[in-house]
Parts: sequence; C-alpha cells; structure tokens
Amino acid sequence: MNQEDDLKQITAKARATTDISHIHAFLGTKTSESWLKLAKANLPLLMQDHANCEKKAAGTAMNLIFRYESHRQLQERLAQLVREEMLHYEQVLSLMKERGIKWSYLPAGRYAKGLLKHKRTWESAAMVDVLIIGAFIEARSCERFKALADVIDDEKLARYYRYLLKSESRHYEDYLMLAQSVSKEPIDERVAFFRDVEAALIDETDDELRFHSGVPSQALLGELGAA
Amino acid sequence: MNQEDDLKQITAKARATTDISHIHAFLGTKTSESWLKLAKANLPLLMQDHANCEKKAAGTAMNLIFRYESHRQLQERLAQLVREEMLHYEQVLSLMKERGIKWSYLPAGRYAKGLLKHKRTWESAAMVDVLIIGAFIEARSCERFKALADVIDDEKLARYYRYLLKSESRHYEDYLMLAQSVSKEPIDERVAFFRDVEAALIDETDDELRFHSGVPSQALLGELGAA
Repeated sequence: MNQEDDLKQITAKARATTDISHIHAFLGTKTSESWLKLAKANLPLLMQDHANCEKKAAGTAMNLIFRYESHRQLQERLAQLVREEMLHYEQVLSLMKERGIKWSYLPAGRYAKGLLKHKRTWESAAMVDVLIIGAFIEARSCERFKALADVIDDEKLARYYRYLLKSESRHYEDYLMLAQSVSKEPIDERVAFFRDVEAALIDETDDELRFHSGVPSQALLGELGAA
Repeated sequence: MNQEDDLKQITAKARATTDISHIHAFLGTKTSESWLKLAKANLPLLMQDHANCEKKAAGTAMNLIFRYESHRQLQERLAQLVREEMLHYEQVLSLMKERGIKWSYLPAGRYAKGLLKHKRTWESAAMVDVLIIGAFIEARSCERFKALADVIDDEKLARYYRYLLKSESRHYEDYLMLAQSVSKEPIDERVAFFRDVEAALIDETDDELRFHSGVPSQALLGELGAA
C-alpha cells in the first residue's frame, strides 16, 4: 500500500470514536508512561495548559480564516473548529472552577514552536505546513486525552476527555483534508517529515510539564514528583 | 434620572427581543431612509459586508481574549460571543450560497476605523474604549437588522435578521457591562462621547455602501442606484 492510500485509510477510520487506532497509526510515537504518570500527579497544571491550548487552537484557526479568505471550504471547516475550541475553552475553565483551580499564567511549552520552526516561508507551502502541523497537534491531543482518561481518578474529567476525543479526531481529519486541498502535489512526504519532527518532540527529554511536553527529565520529576 | 441610572434602564430592557426601543435610546441617531433604500437594492453587497463584519467581530473578541487573560468574566462572555459570531458567519456564507452570491473581496468601510481612532492609548482606558466601541457596533447592527427586516422582500433573510437581533442585543449589553467592569470610574461620559462619534459616522455622507456606512452620497446613489 502506498503512502497516499495509507493516509486515506487512516482518515476514513477517524470517524470511529473511542477506537483511536487510526490516531496511533498516524502518529510516529506513543506518549511515554513517565509523562502520563507525571501528568496524572499534576492535573491542575495540565488543565491550565489545556485551557491555553484550546484558546491557542481557536486563535490559530482564526488567523487562517483571515489569511485565506477566498477558500470556501477552509472558511467553513475552520469556523466550526473555532466554535468548538472556544466551547472547550469555556468548558475547561468551568471544570477548573469546580475543582477550585485558579487561573494562573503559564507560558507555552516548546512543542508548537518546535513544529512551527519547520514551516516553509512561501505560499502555498506555508499554508500546507500550518495545516499539517494542526493535524498533528489535534492527533496528539486525541492520543493524550485517551491515555489520560484511562488512568486518572477524576471520573468526571475522564468522561470529559473521552468526549473531547471525537472533535479532536474530526479536527485532525479536517486539517489533513484542507492541507491536501491547498497543495498541488501529494502531501504525504511533508506529512512524513512532520511525523518525525513531532515524534522527536514527544520522545525528547523535557524540563517542563505541559499538555504536549516530552519525556520528563530527572530534574522535572524531582521538582513535580510523580505519585 | 442621571446617566448611570439611564444606562441601567437601557440595558435591562435589552433582554426583550423584538422590541428594540432600548437600542434606539442607546444610539444617538437613526439609520437614514436613503441608506435603507440603497441597502435594500444592493443585498448581495450588503451580505458580503455582513459576512466580513461577523468575522471581524469574532476576530476582535478573540484578540481581547488573548490580551486580558486573567479577566475571568471577559474570557467567558467573549468566548461565547466568538462562538456566536462565527456561527453567524457560517450562516451568512450559507445564505449567500443559496442566493448564488459568490464570495468577493470587499474592503472594510470607514465606520470601525472612525470609532477606533478615538481609542485612548493607555490601559485600562484603551480596553474600556474598545469595549464601548464594541457595544456601539453591536447596537447599530441590531438597529439596522431590524430596519432591514421590515423592508426587504426576501422573507427568509428577513426572518434571519430578526433572529440575529437577539444575540446582537445581548452582545451590546455584554460589552457595556464588561467596559464598566474594567473601569474604576463610571463609563457614562465615555459612552456619551462615543455616542456622538458613532452618530456622526452614521449621519455623514458616505461614498461607499457598507453594513455600517453613512448617508449615501449623490455619487454613490448614481453608481449603485436605489430601486
């Protein structure tokens, strides 16, 4: 099977909800047990970062809506995506409130920057890259929500993370479709390139804990301690 | 009755839906018959500008969300507003499609710029001003949707404009409330100032037809012709 058929098969599966095998097939690596353990022990920090991520996802999609005004399909899909990410943002704020977690300033991690620095600088290559990066961020979020939902003790939060899987999975699919729609050539090679970049960011040691951070360093484990 | 009580009375009325007397009381002037006549005769152009306005309203609210991260109430209200404006944007695109109106590039009119040039440059005065300007834009939109709904022949579009009144009216109320929430002093004087600026923009002669444009000039009437 060639890469293009492979991609089609993967995205076709994306409609299935709790089965995220298509997401695992799309991503180049799995979240480490040590990240999961540390995240489970630091849910308030993770929830703040998650809120920031939803906001940033909405903001990025909004920028694309303004930059590619005449692309009808992109306008429609991303407008819906903005609405959903904003709703998630409101929902996470509300879940934080319920748990007595106050809003705190938390700078972004290295993940999105680490992907965006490989974005090509000319159009439409830049747009293709931003959309592929969007697909990877959504796919990784999907994978992590599933992993977290399976291990955390907060049942309501676990249910919420399972609910999020569906939209993250659809967003990943939308981003890939839009990336292909603005590219004259097949995007498979570029997808493969970002698969490696993304996997490296997830597999590398990280001194910060964030929703999309890498394998916790010894220093970080010492600082935040895993239960 | 002092200005502050006046403001409270006005916003309390805003919950009523088709009655927009509170909007008329808030605004410093009414839309001219000649604007209404020209708009009625140029609905495709108006719908394109309306789509742009919904998008811009969402973008502006999103910018505020990013700039005032720790203001909880602002985050919640504006996140909901972003969702609603994006939904309206999608709805207008769909109504355009139904009517065979193709997306076309249409630069923004002088209205928003004409309001924003009076924005003070220091915080929190800048924020107060942006929020008050937001309230006027929403209130004016409300007034114009009502006026248009009463005169256009496209029944479906008229129904849609009546449906929009409710959210525009709520957004105007939210913006005013948020403006007061970030200001140590009463905002009435500033509201009165922007009431005059806004009324002048609506009453002045304008060479362009836009959703928020002024009284059509003779040149514009000659160019676009009113039925």
